[in-house]
Amino acid sequence: QRRFQMVRDNKLFEMFVITVIIFSSLMIGIRTYQLDPLYESILLTLDYAVTLFFLIEIMIRMAAEDRLLNFFKKGWNVFDFVIVVVSLIPMDSTEYALIARMLRLFRVMRLISFIPELRVLVTALITALPRMGYVALLMFIIFYLYAVIGNLLFSQINPNLWGDLGISLLTLFRVATFEDWTDVMYETMAVYSLSWMYYISFIFFSAFVFLNMMIGIVVDVLAE
Amino acid sequence: QRRFQMVRDNKLFEMFVITVIIFSSLMIGIRTYQLDPLYESILLTLDYAVTLFFLIEIMIRMAAEDRLLNFFKKGWNVFDFVIVVVSLIPMDSTEYALIARMLRLFRVMRLISFIPELRVLVTALITALPRMGYVALLMFIIFYLYAVIGNLLFSQINPNLWGDLGISLLTLFRVATFEDWTDVMYETMAVYSLSWMYYISFIFFSAFVFLNMMIGIVVDVLAE
Amino acid sequence: QRRFQMVRDNKLFEMFVITVIIFSSLMIGIRTYQLDPLYESILLTLDYAVTLFFLIEIMIRMAAEDRLLNFFKKGWNVFDFVIVVVSLIPMDSTEYALIARMLRLFRVMRLISFIPELRVLVTALITALPRMGYVALLMFIIFYLYAVIGNLLFSQINPNLWGDLGISLLTLFRVATFEDWTDVMYETMAVYSLSWMYYISFIFFSAFVFLNMMIGIVVDVLAE
Amino acid sequence: QRRFQMVRDNKLFEMFVITVIIFSSLMIGIRTYQLDPLYESILLTLDYAVTLFFLIEIMIRMAAEDRLLNFFKKGWNVFDFVIVVVSLIPMDSTEYALIARMLRLFRVMRLISFIPELRVLVTALITALPRMGYVALLMFIIFYLYAVIGNLLFSQINPNLWGDLGISLLTLFRVATFEDWTDVMYETMAVYSLSWMYYISFIFFSAFVFLNMMIGIVVDVLAE
Ligand code: NA
Ligand code: NA
Repeated sequence: QRRFQMVRDNKLFEMFVITVIIFSSLMIGIRTYQLDPLYESILLTLDYAVTLFFLIEIMIRMAAEDRLLNFFKKGWNVFDFVIVVVSLIPMDSTEYALIARMLRLFRVMRLISFIPELRVLVTALITALPRMGYVALLMFIIFYLYAVIGNLLFSQINPNLWGDLGISLLTLFRVATFEDWTDVMYETMAVYSLSWMYYISFIFFSAFVFLNMMIGIVVDVLAE
Repeated sequence: QRRFQMVRDNKLFEMFVITVIIFSSLMIGIRTYQLDPLYESILLTLDYAVTLFFLIEIMIRMAAEDRLLNFFKKGWNVFDFVIVVVSLIPMDSTEYALIARMLRLFRVMRLISFIPELRVLVTALITALPRMGYVALLMFIIFYLYAVIGNLLFSQINPNLWGDLGISLLTLFRVATFEDWTDVMYETMAVYSLSWMYYISFIFFSAFVFLNMMIGIVVDVLAE
Repeated sequence: QRRFQMVRDNKLFEMFVITVIIFSSLMIGIRTYQLDPLYESILLTLDYAVTLFFLIEIMIRMAAEDRLLNFFKKGWNVFDFVIVVVSLIPMDSTEYALIARMLRLFRVMRLISFIPELRVLVTALITALPRMGYVALLMFIIFYLYAVIGNLLFSQINPNLWGDLGISLLTLFRVATFEDWTDVMYETMAVYSLSWMYYISFIFFSAFVFLNMMIGIVVDVLAE
Repeated sequence: QRRFQMVRDNKLFEMFVITVIIFSSLMIGIRTYQLDPLYESILLTLDYAVTLFFLIEIMIRMAAEDRLLNFFKKGWNVFDFVIVVVSLIPMDSTEYALIARMLRLFRVMRLISFIPELRVLVTALITALPRMGYVALLMFIIFYLYAVIGNLLFSQINPNLWGDLGISLLTLFRVATFEDWTDVMYETMAVYSLSWMYYISFIFFSAFVFLNMMIGIVVDVLAE
């Protein structure tokens, strides 16, 4: 067990693990390009090697603990464990090839679980989420109200944009990002000439709530 | 009266009211989708049930007060009262169906009046409004000036964008959101090649005032 | 003189002046709409009345000072004086009609010079300008460098966007506002497939400088 | 040596150097316009004069140091030295004309190295870079993950947007700037109707990380 701890905490070993993670991430990226069969098969072999290495690495870390349970007490360890186990499932038949490649993609996220600074950062981001909880709820209520109104008024004009609640919400998100929002508006203004009030008021409401959320967070963080 | 207060302040009752509000909001959303007649009639029945429940709920809260006047002293109670009363008006003839559905929509806003955190948030947002009063006025003066100039110079080029003051203001709002603003500019530059000065100066002015407003609010809030 | 001071400082008189300013601003706005001749001539008469009233009002304020020189010591008074004098120049021949309407437009800006809060705000905005002086210079250098490079590389591809330094600067401003910037990019990528580096680096540089300017201002203002 | 130091530190000399730098920058800008041959040849002669002047100026500054090594100890001096030396390389054959004009462009950047306030500003910006290092890495991981997923899912639909990792990254950057992102989305929604989840989640993730980076920087800077 001591020996496993020494391996785990060895700086060189850490560097090597990071190198393998980055290397395996690059491999995933390279496979998005057209490759000739030779390289394809080399990549496949390397892929097996990486899978094996990750398995060994996680075993070392498990063996380094006093009790196996301690290993699973840390969220990031569970995260790593799931990624490794999932990549062991044999899925190279063409049928599941897409899913297999998707799952292998999660290896990139091991960069986050392995680099302590990134781990701290993500934890900080997650703890920042509840702070915007009620503002997000209020924002959703505004979107919901406008989506139903938009559906009631404009669904006849353009069902592709206002056909039902879901589509209307998507259209409103588009308007909130200012993405060709005037095209959407001019279309409905041709029928209801006052419908600019709907869009302008929506933009003002959502921008106002958004800006206040931003300011609120800055003030909150500074108060701590 | 004691008993009514007990009902009103009961945690379970509160949870149930919130559930009904959310449920009634979802019903409004579901009706934006094509449904078969059976579900339509079920939704209609449920709608009556919700109306009735909201009526009973508000009556309990009114009966729980020492004097009826105390109930109406709180703005949010008046808000709830209006929503409930308005939904009692019979308007199921096809003629007023649209208005009826619009009014029922306000029930979604009962989420705000019922969840204390949202109530606090909205009150805070409303009190933040006057803070941006004079900056908003200054912004409006800038828009007004540019809208009249735009109308004087460009109304011959494209009356759909610069035909009168109202349309010009809408076009300037579009420019301020950077929404295809170069299309608007290139069109007028074909006639007046120096008209880019109009747009660039407008964007600089409005962005400058807007940014200073943002910074001013952050500083104001921090000073408190 | 005392009497003039009393008139000038009278609350009712102030209210009346503001009403006239707003009224004259509205008149300018109304004239952007198609009117029938009767209303046109009424507006013209009212316009003369407003011109006369502004003349009397500024004379009262001048007469209220101990010495005429004191009146001109305040920048805002000079501002008002110029607006009033300029509107006295007779220019109703159709030839100068456009210029005449432009000049009358400056009356709207008397709202700023008359409402103390707006006066303070504008003064604050003007004093905030030098704070962003060197950052603006740095930003301009970045734009200048990229504009010349863009002209050297892309002027053959699309002279309407990269024909000379001026046009290139305008195109870069467009890219900085994210306005259909990918259209500009895809066009040059068809010739130089690596030209995305030009756009991405420009967006990063300018956004980075802009964000740091924003943060710098917030910190500066807070430090005071 | 004293005499050289006196020349170097002379205010008039400094003003003259800045004038020459600005003048040479303007010359570079003017050459982007169509000029008749006479002006072209005048500009070429002036260009030689500027090159010569810059050479003399840097020699004075080198001679003013006790030891030549001290001169090269300052990064900005090395920066100036490289710019001057590079512009001495004869490259006026038409073959290298483009590169020659590019290199001469760096003279504009001497404005930064010569004006102390700009030098301080740029140094501050560079020291601000590491502060956003890990957030930038996290952002890149998000982009990388989504780019590979986008390539796996959508490369058949539009290879011009999702053909390989590089193109997918560019498309995602476009989506992050809200540039016609709905066009990209509607195209894939025609095949996978749920693909809006891909875009919305990407926008939320990247905006969330970006906003937290901004807030983090403001708080960091204020803490100092
Ligand atoms: Na656009
Ligand atoms: Na846009």
